[in-house]
Amino acid sequence: MSLLHEPHHDGSPLYLDTEVPALDGTVGVRVRTRSGDVAQVWLRTTYDAEPVFHEARPSRDGDTTWWHADLLVHSPVTHYRFLLLLAEGRQQWLTAAGLVEHDGSDAFDFRVSTHAPAPAWGREAVVYQVFPDRFARSAAAEDRPTPAWAVPADWDDEVVFEGSDPRTPLQLFGGDLDGVTEHLDHVQATGATVLYTTPVFPGESNHRYNASTFDRVDDLLGGDAAYARLADALHDRGMRLLGDLTSNHTGDTHEWFQQALADPDSPTRDWYCFLPDGGYESWMGHHTLPKLDHTSAEMRAAMVEGPESVVARWMRPPIGLDGWRIDVANMTGRLGPVDVNHDVARGVRRTAEAERADAWVIGEHNHDASGDLDGDGWHGTMNYSGFSWPVWSWLRDLDSPARAFGRPVPVARRGGRLVQRTLREWLARYGWRATCQSWNILGSHDSARIRTLTGSAVLHRVAAGLQFTLPGVPMLFAGDEIGLEGVLGEDSRRPMPWHRGEQWDEQTLATYAALAAARAEHPALVHGGLRWAHVDEDCLAFLREHPEGDVLVVARRAAGAPLDLGLPGTPELILSTEPDGSTDGPSVTLWRL
Amino acid sequence: MSLLHEPHHDGSPLYLDTEVPALDGTVGVRVRTRSGDVAQVWLRTTYDAEPVFHEARPSRDGDTTWWHADLLVHSPVTHYRFLLLLAEGRQQWLTAAGLVEHDGSDAFDFRVSTHAPAPAWGREAVVYQVFPDRFARSAAAEDRPTPAWAVPADWDDEVVFEGSDPRTPLQLFGGDLDGVTEHLDHVQATGATVLYTTPVFPGESNHRYNASTFDRVDDLLGGDAAYARLADALHDRGMRLLGDLTSNHTGDTHEWFQQALADPDSPTRDWYCFLPDGGYESWMGHHTLPKLDHTSAEMRAAMVEGPESVVARWMRPPIGLDGWRIDVANMTGRLGPVDVNHDVARGVRRTAEAERADAWVIGEHNHDASGDLDGDGWHGTMNYSGFSWPVWSWLRDLDSPARAFGRPVPVARRGGRLVQRTLREWLARYGWRATCQSWNILGSHDSARIRTLTGSAVLHRVAAGLQFTLPGVPMLFAGDEIGLEGVLGEDSRRPMPWHRGEQWDEQTLATYAALAAARAEHPALVHGGLRWAHVDEDCLAFLREHPEGDVLVVARRAAGAPLDLGLPGTPELILSTEPDGSTDGPSVTLWRL
Repeated sequence: MSLLHEPHHDGSPLYLDTEVPALDGTVGVRVRTRSGDVAQVWLRTTYDAEPVFHEARPSRDGDTTWWHADLLVHSPVTHYRFLLLLAEGRQQWLTAAGLVEHDGSDAFDFRVSTHAPAPAWGREAVVYQVFPDRFARSAAAEDRPTPAWAVPADWDDEVVFEGSDPRTPLQLFGGDLDGVTEHLDHVQATGATVLYTTPVFPGESNHRYNASTFDRVDDLLGGDAAYARLADALHDRGMRLLGDLTSNHTGDTHEWFQQALADPDSPTRDWYCFLPDGGYESWMGHHTLPKLDHTSAEMRAAMVEGPESVVARWMRPPIGLDGWRIDVANMTGRLGPVDVNHDVARGVRRTAEAERADAWVIGEHNHDASGDLDGDGWHGTMNYSGFSWPVWSWLRDLDSPARAFGRPVPVARRGGRLVQRTLREWLARYGWRATCQSWNILGSHDSARIRTLTGSAVLHRVAAGLQFTLPGVPMLFAGDEIGLEGVLGEDSRRPMPWHRGEQWDEQTLATYAALAAARAEHPALVHGGLRWAHVDEDCLAFLREHPEGDVLVVARRAAGAPLDLGLPGTPELILSTEPDGSTDGPSVTLWRL
Repeated sequence: MSLLHEPHHDGSPLYLDTEVPALDGTVGVRVRTRSGDVAQVWLRTTYDAEPVFHEARPSRDGDTTWWHADLLVHSPVTHYRFLLLLAEGRQQWLTAAGLVEHDGSDAFDFRVSTHAPAPAWGREAVVYQVFPDRFARSAAAEDRPTPAWAVPADWDDEVVFEGSDPRTPLQLFGGDLDGVTEHLDHVQATGATVLYTTPVFPGESNHRYNASTFDRVDDLLGGDAAYARLADALHDRGMRLLGDLTSNHTGDTHEWFQQALADPDSPTRDWYCFLPDGGYESWMGHHTLPKLDHTSAEMRAAMVEGPESVVARWMRPPIGLDGWRIDVANMTGRLGPVDVNHDVARGVRRTAEAERADAWVIGEHNHDASGDLDGDGWHGTMNYSGFSWPVWSWLRDLDSPARAFGRPVPVARRGGRLVQRTLREWLARYGWRATCQSWNILGSHDSARIRTLTGSAVLHRVAAGLQFTLPGVPMLFAGDEIGLEGVLGEDSRRPMPWHRGEQWDEQTLATYAALAAARAEHPALVHGGLRWAHVDEDCLAFLREHPEGDVLVVARRAAGAPLDLGLPGTPELILSTEPDGSTDGPSVTLWRL
């Protein structure tokens, strides 16, 4: 049976009346089946953990039968699935992870949430990530003295990253915020609409994830004034700016921590997780990154809660951040038996939304964030598990020097069927809406570069094609668009070669721009459903369906015969990730139906 | 590849050093693989939601290689799984639901819990469920006047259950507690060690799930004195007694509710969920069952918390209950956006354990209880989803008049592979320990009888064989052991035909007794692991492994050829559920290895 004949439901407008139902209201839900295949459809939800069934009403539209039911939204996050009675007698469950024939748990139920979704500008965004030390130097950067902790580097120096070289976090290339501002034409040329920079607060490292204060922007980056110039320049272009906040820890040089260390009776002593022996909890055992204690109301007020908090202040003029990416959001507020993570997430969101109603808050999680989304906290996550790793595993070059991120062994190379299963399972776990609000990432400052992983410009563009067409918000790490390489996170932080145009992969840059333009033009690529059309080891094809027009996406990692999907009419090519317009070789092609 | 060659881990002693690790301690975990199949094994856990890997150390023991790792128990419930590098290069994950090759979510991780387990007497129990109105009448029952609400019935009358006949809950057969006491020889002859009765508090129905008070035992049952006689008689035999508490609601005749209705300013008004219009929330819309509001500290004190609560009082002399089965535990404390369910569960357990350290608390849930177990609340659940429905679906007679419970369509008939998948998935979701502490149920006062579902004494005994050999505590509804029938819950409450021995299925009774004896004799059947040996559509075979000796279980729903599992030595038959000792026909056979 063709995948297109499978019964289908997802969280997009064709299948769900509204993404944001009211509590105690009802929302219309629909399942499509091939006419004649299914005899009955039952909507199964739970009221206060008690299963309840409602029969769906069929209406036939030619070869397709639509089954309609009303879902009572009994809880803020209400889950549901469908029990199908097939015409030939078997029973199947339609879950968010696909069809199953056994009576399984609720792990992969569909979900609706009454909490507000991410702002439209976030959902529709293309995010461009900048690591400020490595993006661009303004003229002013030349005159800045090197701080005592730093190992100065010239822009063309090699990045030191092997082993635990102590120079790795200290090597200072001297990029600054005015440097970013000067290159916004380039950023915008990729199609990006949102700029996200890793931290800009001072910290005694090139990555600044070990903040010394949250009260000012690092002078090495140009200080508050340069940050304001960047924000203004972005806003003048109709673009947005996201900050990066280390909610889990500070640096050990942070003023709060220094005060706590110097005086055990200091009011900030309780802001950290000191142990009876005078030691303290820190991020993954790194003593330079003392862990914040979010059970301290005072710390939470300073950091997260209310208009004087760090979260709030930077969202107001003269900077006016549009939202935050929250660093180590998964561990924030969690320590063994203590877990106030959701309280912190709620606090960040509430505070941000008090400053601007359309704030966007993304929580970093490099694994299973399913318990942390869909509520009133993080709108979405950096979707490594549900996007990056499955795409990596489909496209990796087995001889690539790219090293795994988050696991001790190389990323396995896998065929399309396993990759599709992975994508489906995570989409189910995160839920439709949270997935659409999360970031599709091919790499970041923490990972190898996709170019290095695939070992191929062509497969890099295949990856980019998936990044812009699977549900989720594309986030590209600066340099990906011109084919920069890196075998792991630190290596991927190589400076942008502005003055070496000959190193730029202009074809790939053009592909990113074309993909971003297609995403802007076709609502289906942002808001459309996801219905699988064909899957084999080397090909993943799916429909993004939307009332304003469907888009067919065909991704190939190897050459293959044209697909015969039995779709009505003749699809019209929108674009191929290959500049020659190739559709049967390794490529992602988009088709208007 | 034989299932026995699959890499394996579970929560039993061969694979886990202790079921109750200390917080911040480590616990040794082991994976077995076939020697030569696997090159590396990594233990994957999370610290505060951050994935962490530890390499396991192999030690070869002939054809088997054991992989040892130390799991740091960072959280009260710590989850983990294993990443396997196969010798031929592929990667696999060993999860609690089995092996998968895609990088999935944590939904099916193994788990350990630092919370205390169920008491040994509970884990080792065979539970016998009595519905008091239908079990047995003592002589005193003859003289009791019929209350005004009741429709009196003679012991041999038909049970009225069709449609929504108003007589269904009112038909009073007049069984009483002294009647139960008089038949404890029979109860014990089944092998039961624990008696659980549905509610004994007065309520204007035969089921008494609509309590009028929690302060005394129904006079129709013989009152407090009869309950004390039953408890004493059980304890004299070394048996235990569990009560049944409706924590979600009371009857509308309850003194608390009557007071609340009569006076909106009454202190008990807040004990229920009154609406602004004077209406009130009730169980599934039944206005005779007003829902209790567990956000009321006063109600919670009366019901759950402290030595004067209902939970505590009945656990002290003169009754001395050994624990509780909590009715509608899934909905208790939950109402749309409000969810204090875990607080209530914790309160019940804490209060019960204050009365007796080895109290046992089981929460009713007829669907997915996975979020509610493994903590410091309910020790286990009535495992309909993870035991009853998969067994029903394997053994159902398609022509049986038995009606589904919990869904609007008949239970599907399915083959062994889907049934095994179902069993595995639920075992994973509930966790090893919570599954072993939950009740394996073939039917209850709420469901059709297994005899009616299977339409066959032989297949009924196959079901019983699985009930006593899959992980979990067998709970049999009085009458199952002699082959009583019932097409749905109310019909299954037919009175025990004490005086009609010719209706008794003595063979099935003997099978139950033999299964209970085997369970008492072989620690593997209570505490052993579960390793699948062979699965086909008509046969489910598995090992229960334990340091004191393994037991092989072979369940067949149809005749089949002898299995060649390649096990060392010659297995010795312990028992067959068939009186003729049949091993190749429909039966469950147990074998000592």
